[in-house]
Amino acid sequence: MALLVQKFGGTSVADPERIAEVASHVARCRHRGDDVVLVVSAMGKETDELLRLAGEVSDSRPGREMDMLITAGERKAISLMSMALHGVGVRAESYTGSQAGFVTDVNHSNAKIVDVRAGRIRTALDDGYVPVVAGAQGVSVDNNVTFLGRGGSDTTAVALAKALDADACELYTDVSGVFTTDPRVVPSARRMNRITFDEMLEMTAAGCPKPAMRSVEYAHRHHVPLHVRSAFTWEPGTWVTEEDANMEAALIRAVVSDDSQAKITVAGVPDRPGIAGGLFRRLAEADVNVDLIVQNVSTNGVTDISFTVPHEQLPLAMEICESERSATGAAGVTSDHDIAKVSVVGAGMKSNPGVAAVMFETLADNAINIEMISTSAIRISCIVSGDDSDRAVEVLHSVYELSETTF
Amino acid sequence: MALLVQKFGGTSVADPERIAEVASHVARCRHRGDDVVLVVSAMGKETDELLRLAGEVSDSRPGREMDMLITAGERKAISLMSMALHGVGVRAESYTGSQAGFVTDVNHSNAKIVDVRAGRIRTALDDGYVPVVAGAQGVSVDNNVTFLGRGGSDTTAVALAKALDADACELYTDVSGVFTTDPRVVPSARRMNRITFDEMLEMTAAGCPKPAMRSVEYAHRHHVPLHVRSAFTWEPGTWVTEEDANMEAALIRAVVSDDSQAKITVAGVPDRPGIAGGLFRRLAEADVNVDLIVQNVSTNGVTDISFTVPHEQLPLAMEICESERSATGAAGVTSDHDIAKVSVVGAGMKSNPGVAAVMFETLADNAINIEMISTSAIRISCIVSGDDSDRAVEVLHSVYELSETTF
Repeated sequence: MALLVQKFGGTSVADPERIAEVASHVARCRHRGDDVVLVVSAMGKETDELLRLAGEVSDSRPGREMDMLITAGERKAISLMSMALHGVGVRAESYTGSQAGFVTDVNHSNAKIVDVRAGRIRTALDDGYVPVVAGAQGVSVDNNVTFLGRGGSDTTAVALAKALDADACELYTDVSGVFTTDPRVVPSARRMNRITFDEMLEMTAAGCPKPAMRSVEYAHRHHVPLHVRSAFTWEPGTWVTEEDANMEAALIRAVVSDDSQAKITVAGVPDRPGIAGGLFRRLAEADVNVDLIVQNVSTNGVTDISFTVPHEQLPLAMEICESERSATGAAGVTSDHDIAKVSVVGAGMKSNPGVAAVMFETLADNAINIEMISTSAIRISCIVSGDDSDRAVEVLHSVYELSETTF
Repeated sequence: MALLVQKFGGTSVADPERIAEVASHVARCRHRGDDVVLVVSAMGKETDELLRLAGEVSDSRPGREMDMLITAGERKAISLMSMALHGVGVRAESYTGSQAGFVTDVNHSNAKIVDVRAGRIRTALDDGYVPVVAGAQGVSVDNNVTFLGRGGSDTTAVALAKALDADACELYTDVSGVFTTDPRVVPSARRMNRITFDEMLEMTAAGCPKPAMRSVEYAHRHHVPLHVRSAFTWEPGTWVTEEDANMEAALIRAVVSDDSQAKITVAGVPDRPGIAGGLFRRLAEADVNVDLIVQNVSTNGVTDISFTVPHEQLPLAMEICESERSATGAAGVTSDHDIAKVSVVGAGMKSNPGVAAVMFETLADNAINIEMISTSAIRISCIVSGDDSDRAVEVLHSVYELSETTF
C-alpha cells in the first residue's frame, strides 16, 4: 500500500467523460489499497477562456484580480472531480489551494510556494477520503488568492508529495512519458523507462515541454520520485529519479528541439570592458529571458554579440539593443526569427569527450549549418536554421542509436 | 456623500458589455462622491451551466462539493468586475465570501449567515477602494465553502449593508422597481416609489419574485433601507423602508399572482382531534412547503382538507397524503395542477374591513370562481382556476384604481 499524489492536467479532465475515466482509475488505485491525493488543473481550455474574457472586459488587469479569476477554473474541476468520485463509490473532498495549506509569496500570476501546511489533507487521508486539491493556487502571506503560473499544477503535486512524504508523485498527461525525441518528428522515438533529475532538467531547459521545469527542480531538491505517465492509456510511463550508482549512465538520452526562440546579433560592438555587461544588465532589468549567448573573437577592437530570446520578447529586446547600439557606437542590430535550438542530453557525456564532435560532424555531413553552440556538463545545444530543425533531430536521433537502446 | 452597497444580479453582469456598463455606473457614483461596495452574482446563466455540468458528471452530488462548484461562478464575476472598474479608473478589489468575512452555518446549498466580519471590506473602503464582493457565499464554521442558495446575493448585500452601517442597499435588477402588478399582464401597472417592509414581505410571500424574501426579512429586522432599481435604465426605482407615520397607508398597494402551486384535497377525513395535525406534521418532516390550508366545516363527522404545495413537491406530497389516507380511513385524495393564487396587498386594509368584500364581489361579477381563501392583516389571497389568473389580476388592479394612485 502506497501513498500516491496523482496530478491530472487540463486535457486529462477536459470534459465529463474524461473526469469519469479519471474517477474510475482512482477507484482502481483505492481498490488495490493505495492512498491517493489528486491534484487537478482547470478543465481543457478553461484557463484560456478565462483569459479571453478578461481581455474583453478590460485593458487593465491587476495580478490580484487575474489570480482570483484564473483560480476559479480549478475550483470547478476539483468539485466536479469529487462528485465523480462519489459517483463511483469513492469518498472524496475538494480543497482549494488555500484550504490545502499552500501559502505563497505575494507575486501574483507567478507566486512561489513558501509553505505547505497540509494538516487538513492529512486528516482527510486519515479519515479515508481522497483529497482533491486545486492545482497551481494558494493564498499569499497577505491573504490574497494567488496563482502559481502555467504548469503550476505540477509544482502543487510535487510540493504536496513532499509535504505528505508520499511514495511517488504521478504526473498524468496526454503523452505516455518522456521520449528520446518528439515522436511526431521521429516516429521511431522511444519512451524511456527512467531518466535522472539532472537529465530531465536539461531536457526541459532545452525545450521539452513537460513536465514543468519548476516542478522537476522542486522534486529534485526534495527527492520526490516523479512518474510521468498517460491519463489516456494508463500504462506505466517514465520515472524521473535520483541517479542510481548501479546504473550505467547513457551516453545520450534524448534529442530535444525548440523553435520558440529568435536570434539577435549586435554587430561591431566596441570591445571594451563593461559594454556587453551593460547590454545584458538592461535586458535582465526588462525581464527579457536571454538563453544562449555567443561573443565572437574580437577583430580590430570590435566584436559581434549574438544571443537568443523568446519570440514574444523580441520586439522589447530589439528596442533595448537599438538604444544600447546608439549609446555605445556599435555598428548595427539584426534579428532572425527562423531559428531552432537542437540539443542532445545525456549524463554519460560527462566522461566521454567525443559526443560533441559526433554531433557537429553529423550536422555538417548533412549540410546543416551551426549558427551558435552552447554546452553544459550533460547537454550540447546548437542553433540551426528553422528549416533544418526536424532533419537535425532525425539524424542525431539516428547517429546516437536512440531507437535501439533501452534504458 | 453616502455609503452604498450595490448588488448586481446575473442578468446585470451577463457579458463583458454589461460588466462595462455597471463599471461606468459605479464610476459615476464615485465621481459624485459616494463610497460604493459591490455585491455581484454569477454571470447570466453560469449557475445553471455549472448545475448542468454537475448533472453530467455524477448522480452523487454532495452539498459540500456543489457549493465549491457553484461559488466558482461568483469568483469569476467579481474578478472581471474589478478589472472592468480598473479599466475606467476606479480602484477596486475583489473579495470572496470568505475574504469578506461571511461566516455561515454548515448547511450546504442553503447556508445561513451567522456572522459578518467585515474588517477587510472596511479597510478597503478606508483605503479608497471599491470592494467587489462575491454574492451568496461564505465559509462555514468548520471551514468549508458554503452557498447561501438562489437569491442569496440579495442577502449578502443586505447583510453587508448592515455590517457596514451603509446608508442604503441598492438591489439592481432587470426590472425597474416594484410594480402594482406584473406589467406583462396589466400594461397600466405602475412602479411604486415606496413600499413598506411589511407590504413587500406579503407581496414576496404572495409570489412576487424579486427581491428575495430572505433579504427583505433581513433588511426589515436590521432596518436597512432597500432600493430596488434597474441596472439597464439606471433610473430611480422603489424604496422599501420602515412604515412612515406621516404617510397615509395605501388601501391596496399591489395585486400579485402566483401560478407555481398545486392544490391537494383530502376528502372525507374523520373529524377527530390530531388527524389533520398528523398529516401536516408528516408533510413538514418531509420538507414539503405547504402554503394555503382550508378545512371545510365538518358534516357527519367527516371533513375535507385542501392545501397548496409547490408544483415540484406535488408527487412527494401526494405520496404522503395517500399513506395518511389509508392510515386514517379518509375517503380519497385528489390534486389540481392548474390553479393560481391571486393576492391583494396593502397596509391600509388593516383599518378598512371592506377590502375583502370588494375583492370577492369583483371576482364574482367577472364569473371567476374562488376555490380557497387565505388572509393576513394586510393581504387577501384567493385560489382561482389557472385560466382565470390574468383576468382576475386585471379586474382587481382596475377596481382598486392602482393605475391612477401615486405613492
